[in-house]
Amino acid sequence: MKNILAAQSGGPTSAINATLAGVITCALTSGRVGKVFGAHGGIQGVLEERIIDLGEKIKNAEDLQLLCQTPAAALGSCRLKLTDESQYKKIIEVLHRYEIGCLVYIGGNDSMDTVEKLSAYCMQHKIDDICIVGAPKTIDNDLMGTDHCPGFGSAAKYIASTFAELERDCSAYAAKSVTIVEVMGRDSGWLTGAAALARQNSGKGPDLIYLCESVFDSQMFLSDIRNKLRNQNSILIAVSEGIKDQSGRYVSESEGEKALDAFGHTYISGAARVLECLIQNEIGCKTRSIELNLMQRCAGHLASDMDIQESKLLGIKACQAALDGENGKMAAIIRTSDEPYEVTYKMVPVSLTANKVKTVPDDFIDPNGHDVTDKMIRYLKPLIQGNAPVTFENGIVKHISLY
Amino acid sequence: MKNILAAQSGGPTSAINATLAGVITCALTSGRVGKVFGAHGGIQGVLEERIIDLGEKIKNAEDLQLLCQTPAAALGSCRLKLTDESQYKKIIEVLHRYEIGCLVYIGGNDSMDTVEKLSAYCMQHKIDDICIVGAPKTIDNDLMGTDHCPGFGSAAKYIASTFAELERDCSAYAAKSVTIVEVMGRDSGWLTGAAALARQNSGKGPDLIYLCESVFDSQMFLSDIRNKLRNQNSILIAVSEGIKDQSGRYVSESEGEKALDAFGHTYISGAARVLECLIQNEIGCKTRSIELNLMQRCAGHLASDMDIQESKLLGIKACQAALDGENGKMAAIIRTSDEPYEVTYKMVPVSLTANKVKTVPDDFIDPNGHDVTDKMIRYLKPLIQGNAPVTFENGIVKHISLY
Repeated sequence: MKNILAAQSGGPTSAINATLAGVITCALTSGRVGKVFGAHGGIQGVLEERIIDLGEKIKNAEDLQLLCQTPAAALGSCRLKLTDESQYKKIIEVLHRYEIGCLVYIGGNDSMDTVEKLSAYCMQHKIDDICIVGAPKTIDNDLMGTDHCPGFGSAAKYIASTFAELERDCSAYAAKSVTIVEVMGRDSGWLTGAAALARQNSGKGPDLIYLCESVFDSQMFLSDIRNKLRNQNSILIAVSEGIKDQSGRYVSESEGEKALDAFGHTYISGAARVLECLIQNEIGCKTRSIELNLMQRCAGHLASDMDIQESKLLGIKACQAALDGENGKMAAIIRTSDEPYEVTYKMVPVSLTANKVKTVPDDFIDPNGHDVTDKMIRYLKPLIQGNAPVTFENGIVKHISLY
Repeated sequence: MKNILAAQSGGPTSAINATLAGVITCALTSGRVGKVFGAHGGIQGVLEERIIDLGEKIKNAEDLQLLCQTPAAALGSCRLKLTDESQYKKIIEVLHRYEIGCLVYIGGNDSMDTVEKLSAYCMQHKIDDICIVGAPKTIDNDLMGTDHCPGFGSAAKYIASTFAELERDCSAYAAKSVTIVEVMGRDSGWLTGAAALARQNSGKGPDLIYLCESVFDSQMFLSDIRNKLRNQNSILIAVSEGIKDQSGRYVSESEGEKALDAFGHTYISGAARVLECLIQNEIGCKTRSIELNLMQRCAGHLASDMDIQESKLLGIKACQAALDGENGKMAAIIRTSDEPYEVTYKMVPVSLTANKVKTVPDDFIDPNGHDVTDKMIRYLKPLIQGNAPVTFENGIVKHISLY
């Protein structure tokens, strides 16, 4: 029986380890796999032969559960993009040495580029004893070929819950105030749109939402705020980190907004910080900027159960497909209905996904450019349902370490 | 039967509404109270006669539970410090008009100043039909007279869990990197110290912890980081927002660290941001700064059950004392044992607390100034135990609105 290898790549998420748990689950139960190996540090770990026997780390169902509730890449990650044939050759050598018949690579569009290149290399060189498949992952939700991405639902749930809580906090005082919250997403506004989910359960949520898909006009922005301030004291705003002006320049790079550090060097502020200054100067009320920063992608304690379950199923699907001899494919979620929420899982060619970016469609964005539409809410809502089971010990979440 | 009035003041927390729930619980079950009123916006709300009949908002046990899980001041807050007699007079007039015999004021050291002044005014003017008491609240944990403060445990739990998750995220890549996380606390480092709790459950947690009680020496700081970087790739650091240099100047105010906004005005960066620049210039590795910002005080979804239960009990204690005719006192927690954790609740004079600040004692801080001691861990640990019950709907926490 051949062995199988799993590896993780790209930015950490709260759900990427559930996909790994899915791969292990499928391998353990298939009766067609020898050992389950993990590469430490993505494809770089394969190149450098940092191979872990996962059977020594994951011994029972409790370990699998701990893996699911551990955020960030439990196998470690990398951002290496394969560029030359000697790398492919070395990787195949390592796979052969460990008698690996299947490689499941869990990652984003760069990682799917790796899957595409490696499977093409195998095909070209008639290497038919290795199947290479991908499983998607990214909080950004910007992968083509799948309805949504593992990791996104949990990040969206954290963002929605946090906006609901921030709204409570910011509205406690009677003074006029503006709070701008910067959400991850340099090229797509999916996560920023998820802030709108905070309005459910009769919450007021963010008053204004600016996605990076729309041109950001600072005069319109100030006018939107002035309008809101006429009728309420506290304004809560969600902005994508990647909002850009008419000329396509990132707001975070605006002239004059650069800070000088102790050595006179400049650094670039975040978009929210730039807007904080703008409001302070132009409107003059109390203003605060907040970055949700890494917390939005690693808050495993508040992971979406739907996300974790789907992530696991995609891991199972990808592993199953590789065992069945599929190559150069990625496990994907195909949505068939919003309400009731229904999906199917299928393998799609990685070429659909590799190096591409899926932005938020126009009809998900309010024509005024300062909110999302009900259509986006309907799309987002199922993805944050349920609280993933999480074991606590000593008052904090329990995690597992694989290396 | 006399009515009773509750009000909230100072910065929002995840637990202040549990104290309000305690006051309501005591009032409803005592058989000695007519109506339970709430002032909208603290003592300012009393002055401006924004009085809410809480009986119309809290109708059953489910509403009480929703109140406990709603973060931030459900009655609204203020930062008004009473300065002249005309204010005291106006307040007493309003209390008399609503036939209020007890005022429970929930807040921090400024709020206890209000309780002290008002109860002294009543005594001086022989107003013997009104009792005024306080219930403590502040995430900063800096109130004298009580072992710890409602709101602190929940903030500490969020901080500990978040550091555990951030450590996972930051260590996913093999590259050398430093992540500096700024925690609230301008004058006391209690919350920053709570980051150490992330090390339980075999987590590595923050590698270095700098509280604002110790003089911050940037050369020592750089040397600490260089030492750590010799043996590991990723360094996670906790710093208090209020760290100060030898001369007592806030690090966040360091010369040359001020940013220029679009209009050439300067603004002050946070301490973590200043240190990020310092490391980038002096060490040169990948560096990131994170502010836990408002999230640490309003993350009701991860509230400590111990904190919420104690907060409720303090509300009950304060209300009971006021009904029994006590005046100018604050409900406090007296710890009698760390392990097993045991406390008693008693009323202490507000003069113990009003306008005072309790900093972290020397023996809670490592002599090197870059960590906390086991003694601090023993003190902190019981306060984050248990997950407060929280009802979710539509994938996010449910809250209640009182106005």
